[in-house]
Parts: sequence; structure tokens; C-alpha cells
Amino acid sequence: MNVLIVHAHNEPGSFTAAMKNLAVVVLSEEGHEVRVSDLYAQRFNPVASAADFGSRANQEYLVYALEQRHNLQNATLAEDIQAELEKLQWADLVIFSFPIYWFGMPAILKGWIDRVFVSGLCYGGRRIYDRGGLKGKRAMLAFTLGGQSHMFGKGCVHGEIETLLRPIQQGMLAYVGLEVLPPFIAYHVPYISETERWDYLTSYGEHLLTLDAREPLVFPSLDDFDTALRPRSDGARGASESPECLP
Amino acid sequence: MNVLIVHAHNEPGSFTAAMKNLAVVVLSEEGHEVRVSDLYAQRFNPVASAADFGSRANQEYLVYALEQRHNLQNATLAEDIQAELEKLQWADLVIFSFPIYWFGMPAILKGWIDRVFVSGLCYGGRRIYDRGGLKGKRAMLAFTLGGQSHMFGKGCVHGEIETLLRPIQQGMLAYVGLEVLPPFIAYHVPYISETERWDYLTSYGEHLLTLDAREPLVFPSLDDFDTALRPRSDGARGASESPECLP
Repeated sequence: MNVLIVHAHNEPGSFTAAMKNLAVVVLSEEGHEVRVSDLYAQRFNPVASAADFGSRANQEYLVYALEQRHNLQNATLAEDIQAELEKLQWADLVIFSFPIYWFGMPAILKGWIDRVFVSGLCYGGRRIYDRGGLKGKRAMLAFTLGGQSHMFGKGCVHGEIETLLRPIQQGMLAYVGLEVLPPFIAYHVPYISETERWDYLTSYGEHLLTLDAREPLVFPSLDDFDTALRPRSDGARGASESPECLP
Repeated sequence: MNVLIVHAHNEPGSFTAAMKNLAVVVLSEEGHEVRVSDLYAQRFNPVASAADFGSRANQEYLVYALEQRHNLQNATLAEDIQAELEKLQWADLVIFSFPIYWFGMPAILKGWIDRVFVSGLCYGGRRIYDRGGLKGKRAMLAFTLGGQSHMFGKGCVHGEIETLLRPIQQGMLAYVGLEVLPPFIAYHVPYISETERWDYLTSYGEHLLTLDAREPLVFPSLDDFDTALRPRSDGARGASESPECLP
């Protein structure tokens, strides 16, 4: 398979970078084609703006998603976005490699999503979730954080890690139709010993070699929602839980 | 009070910008001092890197938070970070004004958090949550989104809006000690009528005039956790719910 690793760490000697380097080696050895978008090395611009567009549907008033669609159709998207899109379309698996900054992605990586997950191609209208434009491809997160694992969970200081990850795994990846594999998480990385780091690298290598055996995460299916994206009332869901949608 | 509005929209004529403009007028009329960081207008750089530091604790290996503390102490932080920090320290209330991009902040605003919430000043070690460095100040989100309100809630297509907001409201704002006021949310903004927009602006104005009457959101208190940030077992929490922290 073709693997794109989108990597965002400002220190090439970091443990996150070591994980990325290991992934390149392990996946290449398995016979996969691997490409890396090292956003810091590329000096990737994460700011979504009018400068991303060589032509405009509306010169006077910028509606970013509208201009994404217009420029996609006219092949006038900025060169760097076009280059990333080509890698994304080539990929069968996308690995996002980053340190957690403030319970989320570093801005340079969030900006890759903002600018590269273009409307019209990756999603559109009701072409979201299991109707999304990148359906057929897989994605996973491989990230590091400073917090220790005991800080995460129900009633624990930072709460459940799943809710921390939902805006990313559901709101970004599942939203465009990617099948989301379970994340690989390295806790407390700035503080752990050399031995513990090697243990994490070994685990990560094993994780990468067993992706096909892992159950993908479950996200909404548009089968369960009507054309206005309201929950269907025809029993697709089962009677146990009434949806409680905002008015 | 001193109000800092941190605003991130790439179209000055947008509804999000209209909300920001309204906030300036309403709050000024009430006698408050208001300053705006219009990140797009400022061409704010959201990328956290070695370039943020005029001096280095470690020249060979970049540990971003370490260098934030070192540069804070030595007054060698990049000028743009220093300028934003001064506004942040001056503020009693910080309003974050933005459109939702992919269930979160646009990258330019995420980068403001990444670069301006400096370690040593805003937080550090166990100086988090109700021990955080910005304790005594308040914050709120004022944001717009394309989705309709019925898409949010338990069992609804995008899930509960609170879990979407948790990485921001808990992971960024509460984490540094800010008291987080309930957000103001404008749904389906690209698609609603002129009348509906005026209604939202009116509501937002009223919301801003009644901040003192609103119950702040509740987040963890370090009173309930030990020095390793594990839940205390001495009954502070009550017997009803056993924490389930990762091992």
C-alpha cells in the first residue's frame, strides 16, 4: 500500500521524529511505498486565506470552502496545496505524526487539514462520514504527549482520551470518509527513560505491522440519518437510546 | 474591565467579524476597555518554532516549553509573542472569536494558543486548572459554524457539542486557570437569512451584557487530585463514581 506520513515536530531529533523515522523503515521493509510530508522542514504554511486561490468565484467576499471548490474545478489551487492533495490522493493509508499541543494538533498540522482537506474533493454537503470523498482510504494518529496515562479516563484529571481525540478522529478523519484505525499513543515522552523510549519504539513497530488485524473505530453512518442529517426514526438505531439533538 | 478579543476570520465582511465588531461596540458602550487581536490582519504567525526564541537554554535540541520558560525569564521571546502576552496579561476577559474549522479552531488561532500560552507564566507543572497562571481572568468562546443545531447532541450526527468543545474549553482555557463562561454559538451561519443574522447579533449583544449573571463552566480542581495528579481517594469526590484512569 501507499503510505503518507504527515509529520509535525519542530525538533528533528525528537522522539516523535524517531517514531516517524521508524515508521518509514518498518513500512518500507514490508514492501510499502512511503512518503513523508515533514511540515516543519517544508516550512508548510498553515494559514487558510485568499492567497490559496489563483482564481475567485467571488472576488469581493471570501467564503473559503466555496473558493476551494471553485479552484479545485479550475486547477488554480495554490501549488503547495496541490502537492499535498496529490500525496493524499496517492495514499492508501495516512499516518498523522505529532506531539499533542493543548489537547490537539500543533497549528502547523491543523492548518494542513484546513487547507488540504478541500471541499469538493474530500467532502461536500452530505458527502460526509461514510459518504466522504476519501472513502476507501485509512488513517491513524501516532502521537506523543507530556501527560501520563493515569491522567486520562473517566473521573481522571484530564478526562477520557477518547473525548480529547473526537474532534480529530471524528471531526477531521471520519468526516471525510477515512477509515480510522486505533491511535498509537506514547505518554509522558519528555520525561521517560531511554529504555522506555526504546520500548515505545518497539511497540510502535509492532503496531504498524498489525494494522490489518485492528478493528477500525466506529463513527456515524449516514444510513442512520435523513436528508437533513436528523436521526432516522425508523428503527435503524434500536429503541434503547433516544437521540437528544439541539433544537 | 479590560477585554481582549482574539479574532480569527479571513474575511473582514464575515458574520464572525460582524460579531466581533458588535462586541467592540457593546462592551465599549458599557465603559469597558476593549482591544482586538485580529490575527489575519496582523498576519499572525501561528507556527511554534525555534525562531520564537532570542536565546536558548539548549542550542542543540529544541524542547519548546523549556525554551518558552527560559526566554520568558530572559525577556527574549519573539516580539509578536511578547506583544500578545502583554495584551493577555492586561485583559480581565478574553473572548475568542472564530469560525469552527473541522470541529476546532482555525490554525491561525490554534497557533496563538501554542505560542502565547507560554509555560512559566500561563501554567507549569502542577500550576494547571484552578492553580493555573491566568487564574482570576475569564474567557469565553464566541464562534460560528456551518452545521445546524439539530446535528449536535447525544445520538445526533456530530455528537454532543460539549465534547467537541472540551479540548478547547478544558484543554486550553481552563488548563491555564481561566474561568470559562458559557460559549455563544451561531449555527448554520453561511446559510441563514439576513433576519436570522440580525437576530443572532441581537442575542450576542444581550449575551455580552449579561456575562456576570452566567454560571461559569465546571472543570477539574486540583483539590481532588494528589501530587501525581491521580484522583484522591479520601472522599473529596463522593462514592458514586469510581474514576477509571488508564494504567
